[in-house]
Amino acid sequence: MSKYQKVVEQIEQNIIDNHLQQGDKLPTFQDLMKQYDVSKSTIVKALNILEKRGVIYQIQGSGVFVRRRKRTGYINFLESQGFTADLKEFQMKSKVLAVELIQPSEEVRANLKCEAEEQVYFVKRLRFINDQILCIEESYYRQKFVPYLSRSIAEESLFHYVEKALGLTISFSDKYLHVKKLDEKESELLELETGDPALFVEELFYLSTGEPFDFSRMVYHYEHSQFFVQSNGL
Amino acid sequence: MSKYQKVVEQIEQNIIDNHLQQGDKLPTFQDLMKQYDVSKSTIVKALNILEKRGVIYQIQGSGVFVRRRKRTGYINFLESQGFTADLKEFQMKSKVLAVELIQPSEEVRANLKCEAEEQVYFVKRLRFINDQILCIEESYYRQKFVPYLSRSIAEESLFHYVEKALGLTISFSDKYLHVKKLDEKESELLELETGDPALFVEELFYLSTGEPFDFSRMVYHYEHSQFFVQSNGL
Repeated sequence: MSKYQKVVEQIEQNIIDNHLQQGDKLPTFQDLMKQYDVSKSTIVKALNILEKRGVIYQIQGSGVFVRRRKRTGYINFLESQGFTADLKEFQMKSKVLAVELIQPSEEVRANLKCEAEEQVYFVKRLRFINDQILCIEESYYRQKFVPYLSRSIAEESLFHYVEKALGLTISFSDKYLHVKKLDEKESELLELETGDPALFVEELFYLSTGEPFDFSRMVYHYEHSQFFVQSNGL
Repeated sequence: MSKYQKVVEQIEQNIIDNHLQQGDKLPTFQDLMKQYDVSKSTIVKALNILEKRGVIYQIQGSGVFVRRRKRTGYINFLESQGFTADLKEFQMKSKVLAVELIQPSEEVRANLKCEAEEQVYFVKRLRFINDQILCIEESYYRQKFVPYLSRSIAEESLFHYVEKALGLTISFSDKYLHVKKLDEKESELLELETGDPALFVEELFYLSTGEPFDFSRMVYHYEHSQFFVQSNGL
């Protein structure tokens, strides 16, 4: 872990441990530099990351302040990446429905920019949050980047596997979302009625090289899923 | 407009004008400094903002690359702030249903951290996108910050009014979302059936001072609303 990442973690932990509230002021740059024994540029970098994450806000000429959302029980909509890792607040489990190496459909091929003949791993899972059904997830991983997958791997965090075992860096994603009515198959899996409402999310994940490597579709159980999003004015 | 903001706009415009595609490489820092006649720190700041906005991605040691989402017709879920301004792609209109100065309910008071006796402007609008119903919006503005509101002001962009006429800076927001079934009143306004699906969003907007000034509830028409969200891995 690099120096600024350590500082990021320490400042965040400090806010939690000391029960700091929204609007509470953090020490000055000088004091933070002394406290963590790092340079000003490391503090600047760490604070920018904490601001992006919605942990603090900075007011030019006035200081750095704590930002805390008030509600618990909401899933961070921007951090689906770290699904299993980040949701410390929740207990996540998966039931694997399928793991297959397949020829992608035209739609999947176009989204993932697959080359001709390129194969993808299709993974279908039912995901649980605190032992309740959270969503149906269908993912397509390019074999080019994920040469091997199995049922037992898919039972755990796939992104953890991709990052730790395969050494890939997942860098950003595009999400597309709308609300719809469940069809018969979906409602059966989610144990709901056909026609019940659902949040439908398509997500394209990119590696740090800018290449798309995973295309996923999620259908969320409307009674078991609620999300929060922290925006920063730009 | 500050120097780096100008560079942000110019680089973005340049990407659009030259039809640059995802993965296309931008000039080096040196070339950008020359091209826009600014310092390195201004370029760094501009590129960081463009990265946050999902316009580019940066690969350490390798360069700066264009990031473009492929789908049109989706609303930027993180930029509801600039609703009327940012949605150049869409035509936005509002039908004002109510503008009243009221005593806030306990729920509104708690969200906005109102002082005792503090009043709020309640604004209810039906919002249209390309002449189709987009959502029902109920907003509560603290009179402390928004001393005056009228029906004709509410017909236009309220955030534009708040920023331009009142000189306030809207800095960040917390969104909470889930999917639900429409009740009778909502379905009537949206011209849908009771029980039809809807995205329900509660949003708290903060000024640059960290003070909450607007609490809003939106109920979206499921057939006329779709969103995109660009996440950055952190």
